Amino acid sequence: MMGSSLCVPLVDRGHEVRLVGTHLDADIIQSLKSDHVHPKLKLELPSAIQPFYLEELADAMTGADAILLGVSSAGVAWSATAITPYVRPERPILMVSKGLSYDGRELSVLPDVLRYALPAELSASIFPAAVAGPCIAGELARRVETCVVFTGRRQLELDRLKAWIGGGYYHVFTSTDVLGVEACAALKNAYAMGIAFAAGLHEKAGGAPGSIASHNYEAAVFAQAIVEMQLLVKLIGGSPNSVVGLPGVGDLNVTCNGGRTGRFGRLLGMGLGVEESIRRMEGATLECLEILGVLRRALPALKAAGAVREGQLPLLEHMMAVALDDAPVAMPFAAFQPMSRLS
Amino acid sequence: MMGSSLCVPLVDRGHEVRLVGTHLDADIIQSLKSDHVHPKLKLELPSAIQPFYLEELADAMTGADAILLGVSSAGVAWSATAITPYVRPERPILMVSKGLSYDGRELSVLPDVLRYALPAELSASIFPAAVAGPCIAGELARRVETCVVFTGRRQLELDRLKAWIGGGYYHVFTSTDVLGVEACAALKNAYAMGIAFAAGLHEKAGGAPGSIASHNYEAAVFAQAIVEMQLLVKLIGGSPNSVVGLPGVGDLNVTCNGGRTGRFGRLLGMGLGVEESIRRMEGATLECLEILGVLRRALPALKAAGAVREGQLPLLEHMMAVALDDAPVAMPFAAFQPMSRLS
Repeated sequence: MMGSSLCVPLVDRGHEVRLVGTHLDADIIQSLKSDHVHPKLKLELPSAIQPFYLEELADAMTGADAILLGVSSAGVAWSATAITPYVRPERPILMVSKGLSYDGRELSVLPDVLRYALPAELSASIFPAAVAGPCIAGELARRVETCVVFTGRRQLELDRLKAWIGGGYYHVFTSTDVLGVEACAALKNAYAMGIAFAAGLHEKAGGAPGSIASHNYEAAVFAQAIVEMQLLVKLIGGSPNSVVGLPGVGDLNVTCNGGRTGRFGRLLGMGLGVEESIRRMEGATLECLEILGVLRRALPALKAAGAVREGQLPLLEHMMAVALDDAPVAMPFAAFQPMSRLS
Repeated sequence: MMGSSLCVPLVDRGHEVRLVGTHLDADIIQSLKSDHVHPKLKLELPSAIQPFYLEELADAMTGADAILLGVSSAGVAWSATAITPYVRPERPILMVSKGLSYDGRELSVLPDVLRYALPAELSASIFPAAVAGPCIAGELARRVETCVVFTGRRQLELDRLKAWIGGGYYHVFTSTDVLGVEACAALKNAYAMGIAFAAGLHEKAGGAPGSIASHNYEAAVFAQAIVEMQLLVKLIGGSPNSVVGLPGVGDLNVTCNGGRTGRFGRLLGMGLGVEESIRRMEGATLECLEILGVLRRALPALKAAGAVREGQLPLLEHMMAVALDDAPVAMPFAAFQPMSRLS
């Protein structure tokens, strides 16, 4: 959905845009080829966007100036293999995938996962960039004013991508803090789930949505999420400043206002349990579970190394208990930290 | 409303609570005396709360352990005179008023305004504390889990107030960063207005509320608000860390989810103009206009002193243009800053 949406500002800037589906997207490509309707975005996309099946990848890559990669985090390694024949130092890669990876030693962000999944001779010279910041795909595809951050290790490449893609309603900023910006993009999905517990508890107690609901609860969790995101970003080697802006507070805010992570958190807050909550999501990708799983595997080593102290991440640990171990929601407010201690 | 709501956790903790109305609150006190219903909260309050008319203030103060002050920012100077006979060094004062004041030289927070409005012999030894953080009054009165920050210059007094008032669903944290925490409490009202422009623009364009709306726009403004709040907090002499937690991101989040500031911003976003928007608010206190007015008076001197550079506060300046000068909403996204540069 995000990859397809990003095609809209691209064609609006006058680029020739070729949208290639993975083997999971054949239905979408077929629909786009027949009448330009994207079935998941429920929208007719500009007819200038040229859809390609995966089998047509080589044609799509002919003469391409840049590669934009919109696979899910689970597909990053696969996509590295798929695009390897077309990767060139002068052809920038921009990713919209969100996630974290843990190899048993350290946490990595997806641009680095992609980089090291490429053959060694390419890894040496290719530094994939990524898009972060608050962007609901369905709104971008409808040309809602949107601010995003392109992050990568090479400022000149970021400037080039910004000059190509940014403009009009699509406001592009750049940052070389790949670790901080990309960690935010991943973590916000986990934390948005925890914020949504409030809506589920409220509904379970018979409350209706409205301006008097459980917003005090939500806002306290939102604040704690930001405090913990700063800690985790620092831990991963990023800048806590990236949390204070579009990648952190901005993206967490938008994630609470739309989409599947919030719906899933609400179901857990209603007390439906993990299995039933997943069932009701009807196969939607649940990045939050993936991120929580990665962090659960990483935390013991981080604690052993003294990078995280016991009790520093009470919200994260509670979300893990609820979403991975099926514990009931019982927010540990008293263990919260009222404000950052990082600066 | 907030003063009355705060009586609920107080009686739940077993305190004897005497709620005194100002001369503007006689109707509320009368209603509470007759059937315990608070007409603005639209709720029956616990019968243990004892309502008093202003004329009964002396009786209400007899033997009081602490004074909680819930007047609006415009009433702080008046209330200083009213409570002077009852102020004692061993009787802490806790304020729920939100606002900033500018005396032509510097910006002050309300606990300091109250302090210096007291007679000099009291100013020397009285350091009023204040409540900040995300709290919708109507939710607190309904015992929704709520996290707040008590801020003041004396940690021991904050600890005492926390021990008296906190507990159960009312989670109290403390901070001695009065300038930072109180600046957040004031500024969030102005910035919540700007975030709500998005909903008004969306509605004006024929859009319905939903998960595909103008959330990308809202979230970008939310992020910029936090970046600018950090700058302003630092300018006032507070800690930018207070923005990263309950007083800043938490309170801004909750203010966007309920209440009059958001409704007013939405009306401005719909293009109704200042006069008509104020009319439709039917006399509700609009803290946002007050804060923007104070900042407009203060900014030229701050710029002249080099404390603020041209272009550092594009969102604030746009909100002033819209809400004080009746300019149309045209968000200056390109002038935004993608993340904090403070740490």
